[in-house]
Amino acid sequence: MQELRVELADRSYPIVLGGEMAAGLPKRLIDMFPDARFALVTNTTLKDLYRDHLSSWKSQLQFVEHVMPDGEEYKSLECWREILATLLTTRGLDRRSVVCAFGGGVVGDIAGFAAASFLRGVNYVQIPTTLLAMVDSSVGGKTGVNHASGKNRIGAFFQPRLVWADTEYLTTLQEREFLAGYAELFKYAFIGGEDMFAFVMSRHDAMLAREPEILTEGIRRSMQIKARVVSQDEKESGMRALLNYGHTFGHSLERSFKYAGILHGEAVLWGMACACDLGKRAGTIPAEHISAYDAICKIMPTVQLPARPPVDELYQGMFTDKKTHGATIRFVLPAQPGTSIITSDVATEDVLATLENALA
Amino acid sequence: MQELRVELADRSYPIVLGGEMAAGLPKRLIDMFPDARFALVTNTTLKDLYRDHLSSWKSQLQFVEHVMPDGEEYKSLECWREILATLLTTRGLDRRSVVCAFGGGVVGDIAGFAAASFLRGVNYVQIPTTLLAMVDSSVGGKTGVNHASGKNRIGAFFQPRLVWADTEYLTTLQEREFLAGYAELFKYAFIGGEDMFAFVMSRHDAMLAREPEILTEGIRRSMQIKARVVSQDEKESGMRALLNYGHTFGHSLERSFKYAGILHGEAVLWGMACACDLGKRAGTIPAEHISAYDAICKIMPTVQLPARPPVDELYQGMFTDKKTHGATIRFVLPAQPGTSIITSDVATEDVLATLENALA
Repeated sequence: MQELRVELADRSYPIVLGGEMAAGLPKRLIDMFPDARFALVTNTTLKDLYRDHLSSWKSQLQFVEHVMPDGEEYKSLECWREILATLLTTRGLDRRSVVCAFGGGVVGDIAGFAAASFLRGVNYVQIPTTLLAMVDSSVGGKTGVNHASGKNRIGAFFQPRLVWADTEYLTTLQEREFLAGYAELFKYAFIGGEDMFAFVMSRHDAMLAREPEILTEGIRRSMQIKARVVSQDEKESGMRALLNYGHTFGHSLERSFKYAGILHGEAVLWGMACACDLGKRAGTIPAEHISAYDAICKIMPTVQLPARPPVDELYQGMFTDKKTHGATIRFVLPAQPGTSIITSDVATEDVLATLENALA
Repeated sequence: MQELRVELADRSYPIVLGGEMAAGLPKRLIDMFPDARFALVTNTTLKDLYRDHLSSWKSQLQFVEHVMPDGEEYKSLECWREILATLLTTRGLDRRSVVCAFGGGVVGDIAGFAAASFLRGVNYVQIPTTLLAMVDSSVGGKTGVNHASGKNRIGAFFQPRLVWADTEYLTTLQEREFLAGYAELFKYAFIGGEDMFAFVMSRHDAMLAREPEILTEGIRRSMQIKARVVSQDEKESGMRALLNYGHTFGHSLERSFKYAGILHGEAVLWGMACACDLGKRAGTIPAEHISAYDAICKIMPTVQLPARPPVDELYQGMFTDKKTHGATIRFVLPAQPGTSIITSDVATEDVLATLENALA
């Protein structure tokens, strides 16, 4: 069991990372919030898989439980509203209440936005159960829901008070889900510095085989990089945008598939390969490092797209990303190994060529 | 034209207060947000009343306009969602966008919550048009909507970047609306210190007659007191609760009438009288000051209730206020003139006696 910390002045919080920690959670929560009432949000799949955990926690924490359906399509205003209805109509839940999110990115994001909006904000605890949620969504305070016009377009920056990352849950993850989460871990090879680049290059096979110690170390490094970036730029005015490496392309791809048939992590994998390709075309990668990028792109898992979306649609879709500023797109492109840069200085032809190439 | 300032570290913002300032607004906004796209939220009544202002602003700011119906019943999740739909589907609105709320408390609160939730938060400017919004809701960053279970139970703490308070709009306010806003100004007599207590006692008639200079001075003092309290306690963990003087009773009254037939300020007026009465019973007012409180309660406008709600229902209703902590109610009760205290140490019989008395 290790403890990291996200430093954000009066909103700082600990991340506890380890294996088989379920028994310790209630004590930790009661120590942190001695007089609080609890609510727990999870989904039907996890409720079935972890019935024993949940009933043991419930007997100690007496939480009100909200079980939502499983799937990205439920990360919607409707489901958010249903969570709020549970919170609003449970007697005794006041501003000192604690909303716990037990699940992957969908549960964490929507429960976090519900915690942010209930009584103008109550305490919020993340118990991520997927690799994606551990290395990405549980750290950094981005909460929200999707909208027909794009992903995560409604939400809040709202920091949790605690992240409880128990790698035990990763053993039940299906291979496709695991790989989609691994995409975000892999991402840190491009933005987390030279060490992380080398770590991923050398430990890739072991992590894919879910070797517990090596995988935990990869998660720890990813969380630490993310915590550092978020501490420096909570609201994404500057360098936090680096975390979107692969996402400008990826979001547009997901949107063109209407979020069906492709997982977020799969879209990001595709987007990261696009960013490497565009980096070569736009000249952000120094010549002597192109071979290093070729090598890492070669080991990066490839994704089978469910169909071939029109290049024009993908290109247009990039303009409605949250990170676009009016008519320009801010690309995150690789530079030195482990380092990326944010730039708008990219020729349209190069972007179109990258898209054509990625769909070939 | 005067300028106050709410001090909140990197979320500090100016309040501009004066008369007939409409012509100066576009320049100020463009200076503050040189590259931004604008959205403006208002209601049908104001759209009719200030068509000229709005079209002059629109020609300079090119904002997308969202006009909602007029009335507290529209401070709902549905209307919030409609505002978001406008923002989400307007091409070119990105994170640097500015949402301007032109209206009273309803428009300000709901547009503020939309600004807080759109792309996880964009810039937000308050242009309050009612006395209530000027002295109360436009300062302090409380945004949100109502829910069947109570007022303002869904929302966010989200600070505006600018408050532009033009007293010109007060001339078109209907008497009942004016009085309801005046209730919140009157409130500062109980929590704003001895000077404010004396100011309200001596300027009460002139303010009710809307004498421009004296009314503006009353607004300035109210805003300044509120700005000071909010600077010290943004999220209402401690002394900000003082601003709820009269509100624990008032909210319960509004709820029992299902927010129909009574204005928020009217309920607060009634609640402030209740708090004085309870203060006497609970012994929070020193004996030598009881006469001062009798005098101020005597000049306080009285409210005709649309019906007599059951005492039990009112009492129970106070437990679902956001500020209750589990099973206790935190009352804000008068002490020295101009000073109130927060206490839970109040006998149930005294509260019931106060309610009986206030409904007699």
